[in-house]
This record gives sequence, structure tokens and C-alpha cells, in this order.
Amino acid sequence: MFAAAARVAVRALSTAAPIAAPASAAAASAAPASVWKLGKLNHVAIAVPKAEPARAFYRDVLQAKVSDIQPQPEHGVYTVFVELGDTKIELLEPYGKDSPIQNFLDKKPDGGLHHICIEVTDIRKAMADLAARKIRALSKEPKIGAHGKPVVFLHPKDCNGVLVELEQA
Amino acid sequence: MFAAAARVAVRALSTAAPIAAPASAAAASAAPASVWKLGKLNHVAIAVPKAEPARAFYRDVLQAKVSDIQPQPEHGVYTVFVELGDTKIELLEPYGKDSPIQNFLDKKPDGGLHHICIEVTDIRKAMADLAARKIRALSKEPKIGAHGKPVVFLHPKDCNGVLVELEQA
Repeated sequence: MFAAAARVAVRALSTAAPIAAPASAAAASAAPASVWKLGKLNHVAIAVPKAEPARAFYRDVLQAKVSDIQPQPEHGVYTVFVELGDTKIELLEPYGKDSPIQNFLDKKPDGGLHHICIEVTDIRKAMADLAARKIRALSKEPKIGAHGKPVVFLHPKDCNGVLVELEQA
Repeated sequence: MFAAAARVAVRALSTAAPIAAPASAAAASAAPASVWKLGKLNHVAIAVPKAEPARAFYRDVLQAKVSDIQPQPEHGVYTVFVELGDTKIELLEPYGKDSPIQNFLDKKPDGGLHHICIEVTDIRKAMADLAARKIRALSKEPKIGAHGKPVVFLHPKDCNGVLVELEQA
């Protein structure tokens, strides 16, 4: 984690990031929060044993606009997006034997709230800043998420018991 | 529940609701979904043992705009609102001995995702429609929620394991 953070810090200093203060090493290290910003809630993820009944609930009962069921083999899930204002619910059904949500569903067979995803302007700078504040990430580097954008998950123990995903907007 | 639904149905027929078709009893009963609409995600609620550290996490680490801690004795919680685009996170700390979130925290002492709240245009019409579709509510009548608006909670068993709150916008 610290090696990764150091690499990101070097990267931050070597690029022309929009820092208001003079781009000296001292200014960058004194105000890491100034180089990335938090955005909107991208989605709330709900793990379900089967996507179709959950999709029907949001579409037919709650009258929400829903997507088709999309297999995401590289992420071990099927996804359905439910539009709710400028955010969405992401329904997740396990795909394959090694789905990352299977353990959650073993404990909650009916399904339940799995994680929240918040947008950030620069995920590597956010990760460096969070590492400096002792917030653990679940991977050393961002991964490409289900929306094709860089994402990272933060440790629930460091986020009030909540699995928090950050996604570069 | 059915008695309440019948009362709401009578009320719906007796008011000048914006129904496109002729406001006959047949038209109203054939298309109950037309008389209320789903709105945005109002908030995602996170139960926490203590509000201040969670508030500091969202304010200082994630750089979000947060409210003060507000005691809500009539709801058995302290609340903090975290702004995220056009929705928000609602942090909930137990208030008093009979807090409705204490049972949740007994099972998840670190905290966790507690419920989601979605806006509806007319909560009584929504409740009548949901009752007709066998979705159970946790109260027969709407209650006044923490934002001073009518709310109702739906049974998690009927909502994919998720506690869903509806709030009249």
C-alpha cells in the first residue's frame, strides 16, 4: 500500500494537475485534498439471489426504469441498473462459481444492501490521500469496474462497516 | 392493511386526481399505477454506533458536505446528512433506550447499510397500490419521518432483503 501510495505521489508531482497553489513539492504534500474531489453517489448495490424477480419488483411494482440483465463474467456478476434521479440502484446476481457476492448471499440468502459507490475526479490521487489517512483499500491499484471505469473498494472496517467503492467519474 | 387500502381507494376516487382517462371508478381501479409516480433516491441510511467519527470520515476524509448532528428523540436516532449530488447519505446513531436501529447494531456493531429511501408523489396511493400487489408495509398508515414528511417502510422480505422507505416528496 505504501509503495503504491509513493508511486502515485510521484506521479501527482510529475503531471500538470490543476493545483491552485504553486506546484512545489511542499504545496502538494501539505494539501493532498485539493487535487481530487468527491462527486455524486454513482449507485447503491443490492445483492440478490436472482436478478429477474428483483428487476420485476423495481420495474412493475415501483415503476422505475430498469436495464436488461447484463452478464459481466469478468466481474462474476449479472447486473441490472435501476434509474433513480441522477443515481441508480445496481442489482447484482452471482455469475459463476467464484462470484464476489456469493459469500454475502450465503449469509443473507434473500439478498440485501451490498455496497455504495461514490464518484471521485481522480482515483489515484484519492487512493494516495486515503492511504495517508490510514484508510485501507482492498487492492493496491484501481481495477476496471463494471462501467468500464477505474474503481477501488475501501475496507468496511475503515468506513463505518460499509463497503465503499470509489469510481473515477 | 386491506381496510387501510380500501379507505385510500375511496379517497382516491373522491379527489380530483390528475387521471388522464375519464375519472370513472373502472378507469381508476384498472390503472392504479397511473395515480402515483416514483421519484429520486432521497437517501441511503447508514447505522453507526457513534455519529461523530462517521461524520468526520465523510467530511474530512471524503471531503463531503455534512450537516450537524441532529437529535431526533421522536424517532430514536441522531441524524447527520451527507450531501452527494441530488441524494444524500443519512448517518443514524441510536438515541435513547428504544432506538429502532439498536437491534441492527447489536448484529453489526461497526455499523452498516440500514435502508434506502425513495420518493413517491403520493404515499397513500402508493401504499394502496403496493398492498394490492401483496407488498407488506410495516405500518398501516404513513408516519411523519425525520424530514417532516409522510413516510412508510416496506417489509424487507418483499423487497429482496432490503428495508425500503417511501417518502412523499
